[in-house]
Amino acid sequence: MAYVNENYLKLSGAYLFPEIARRVGAFIQRRPEIEDRIIRCGIGDVPGPIVPAVAEAMHAAIDELASIETFRGYPPATGYDFLREAIAEHDYRRRKAPIEADEIFVSDGSKGDCGHFLEILGPQNVVGLPDPVYPVYVDTNVMAGRTGPALDGGGYQGLRTLPATVENNFIPEPPTDEVDVAYLCFPNNPTGSMIDRSRLEAWVQWANERDAIILYDAAYADFIRDPSKPRSIFEIPGARSCAVEFRSFSKHGAFTGVRCGYTVVPRDLVARTANGNEVSPHSLWTRRWTTRANGVSWPVQRGAAALYHEDGIAQTAEVVDRYMEHAGLLREGCRSLGWQVHGGEDAPFVWASSPDGSDSWTLFERILEETAIVVTPGIGFGRMGEGFIRISAFNTRERIDEVVRRLAEIAD
Amino acid sequence: MAYVNENYLKLSGAYLFPEIARRVGAFIQRRPEIEDRIIRCGIGDVPGPIVPAVAEAMHAAIDELASIETFRGYPPATGYDFLREAIAEHDYRRRKAPIEADEIFVSDGSKGDCGHFLEILGPQNVVGLPDPVYPVYVDTNVMAGRTGPALDGGGYQGLRTLPATVENNFIPEPPTDEVDVAYLCFPNNPTGSMIDRSRLEAWVQWANERDAIILYDAAYADFIRDPSKPRSIFEIPGARSCAVEFRSFSKHGAFTGVRCGYTVVPRDLVARTANGNEVSPHSLWTRRWTTRANGVSWPVQRGAAALYHEDGIAQTAEVVDRYMEHAGLLREGCRSLGWQVHGGEDAPFVWASSPDGSDSWTLFERILEETAIVVTPGIGFGRMGEGFIRISAFNTRERIDEVVRRLAEIAD
Repeated sequence: MAYVNENYLKLSGAYLFPEIARRVGAFIQRRPEIEDRIIRCGIGDVPGPIVPAVAEAMHAAIDELASIETFRGYPPATGYDFLREAIAEHDYRRRKAPIEADEIFVSDGSKGDCGHFLEILGPQNVVGLPDPVYPVYVDTNVMAGRTGPALDGGGYQGLRTLPATVENNFIPEPPTDEVDVAYLCFPNNPTGSMIDRSRLEAWVQWANERDAIILYDAAYADFIRDPSKPRSIFEIPGARSCAVEFRSFSKHGAFTGVRCGYTVVPRDLVARTANGNEVSPHSLWTRRWTTRANGVSWPVQRGAAALYHEDGIAQTAEVVDRYMEHAGLLREGCRSLGWQVHGGEDAPFVWASSPDGSDSWTLFERILEETAIVVTPGIGFGRMGEGFIRISAFNTRERIDEVVRRLAEIAD
Repeated sequence: MAYVNENYLKLSGAYLFPEIARRVGAFIQRRPEIEDRIIRCGIGDVPGPIVPAVAEAMHAAIDELASIETFRGYPPATGYDFLREAIAEHDYRRRKAPIEADEIFVSDGSKGDCGHFLEILGPQNVVGLPDPVYPVYVDTNVMAGRTGPALDGGGYQGLRTLPATVENNFIPEPPTDEVDVAYLCFPNNPTGSMIDRSRLEAWVQWANERDAIILYDAAYADFIRDPSKPRSIFEIPGARSCAVEFRSFSKHGAFTGVRCGYTVVPRDLVARTANGNEVSPHSLWTRRWTTRANGVSWPVQRGAAALYHEDGIAQTAEVVDRYMEHAGLLREGCRSLGWQVHGGEDAPFVWASSPDGSDSWTLFERILEETAIVVTPGIGFGRMGEGFIRISAFNTRERIDEVVRRLAEIAD
């Protein structure tokens, strides 16, 4: 008799974005006449397109696959050297973050990596998660059996909460109780907050003192405007022995439909067996990839490498400028309504709440009903997201202007 | 203190192909003058290229990504409907295998799927594995904690062996002891054997009687020449309630560097909780994909769909014909040496042994030393592969002719 992984049965309800899709679908059924007016500022997808340098590189790669002289078969399981080297040079060494090419693991996306990394960690780790938080961190821990059952009102038994609130500027403090593995995400999804060096130093110090690991999600690093803020945790001395970093090409590179990201696992990182013997996560992670995958598509890796060529860098910088201009417009738009507004300065997300104290789904439904704009309810990211909504800057300028105009109507 | 998944520490030695690469590297260091003569018939990679229909579709898809009007962002986590529908129609319904589009899960490759599927199965399942076997099945079960320590001489405590020998034509019999999840692979890697309907019916009957699940790897289905042999386990009545099937575009579609495959999980499949409650693996697998991944690259899915268009089908059929002609040449070549030869009739692999009873690594080293040809040692696939080598038909015609010529030299 075949048995299932019963941890999956602990998962409460649908994942956030399918639930939003369901409610939007119901809205359209109720009011089909305004389906065309709907503007989605919910899911963090981008309007695209991929930049010309990427398209050119991908076309060339497909021509190579189509000729027996230049065909490429199975890629290296952890990524082609040309891409790992470009990443190490541009995203790390040029920023004085001491990371080498063989510490970069290329994948088909950062969402996958966040879940996969749990595979090489033991079941006994106590996991600390920010609240509000990207739901994938939570659900993948549930699936991996690192929690008890779901709790009434959200969350799961066994997970430690790292509160991100107005009071701490949405930047959690290192925990004082026992935590073995802590997630951080900066620039933050969903709150749009960004950590500064001194507070990230405090986290690195905490992790090194406890022999803990920080899983640092820097998927939005390219959107940081303030040059004093760290783009990578590896800009902080000591991070090589306590941190893993997840990065993505999805947003600045418009790679949501192309699928590529990477994870940095330094050789200095150490974890332990139950007996206290040191083991290298770098070596386990290498084994994980060589055994369980066959690497990332050739045209995709060529496209990703083009993001680091001169023209790719220039074209991508324009894309980032544009989205951050959108974030500024959304900030101003929300503020003019008298809402409390956070984020949107070093991150492509604006995090806002209504002064009347409405809960998140009420705000979501009200904005949908009155303006046909889809936002993301903060409660979808955890209990402490209650009362907030997230608005994404990933849209065309035309739509962003329209969003700001429609939001102004709510105020009237 | 962060802890590792100690199951990884049970893994014995390197994965087969890295070990082959190491030995070939050592050979080249010893005899650098013949590096250019080396012909690799080891790893199952293809020489390519992708067929024109695929290249054309991928180019068009990249143009779509490069324009804001036609850009596609996050794909559906389980695959685009156009591809799932094409697969269900061509690979299943036209062969009278009752599979619907929403039972097809598109992924970045079959190797990944084999490992991922274990995530939704409980730790208590007793797993039956053929010997010899594709090592990925074994290693992913070790990583998932379904075994005890490695055994002297190969294998792991806790796994049940399904022997594939000369006596049973390399087609294991259903086990008589308790097995909850059994792997089968036909056309078989590594032995090149192919199961017939009646023996596959016996397996389906066994699984339905035991409420077991068969994980059926049909990655090489397109290479079956005998029209009476089943291309899919779902051609067998009753398979919908007991089987999962893994399929690949890697070989017939030259997708090793493109990365796409799929898994079929029928809605009728049932597994159980420890308490005996029925759970649908289809629903857990859907949840797995929506939570842990963001789907497969747009140009890759467009390319895969082109394999099912009229010109893609015709072009791919030529590719398959060519490789199967190669398999025939290799069979004859080995046979003329007086070797025992198996496989290569409905599969792109030839499985051979020397009449002098040499062990696999001795044969591997001898062939490498004397002919600079890289084969795969049978022992790398399990204890019962001892004495055999696997030769792959995935090469250019020129190289296959040269392989046959050089093998003839051994005989002299």
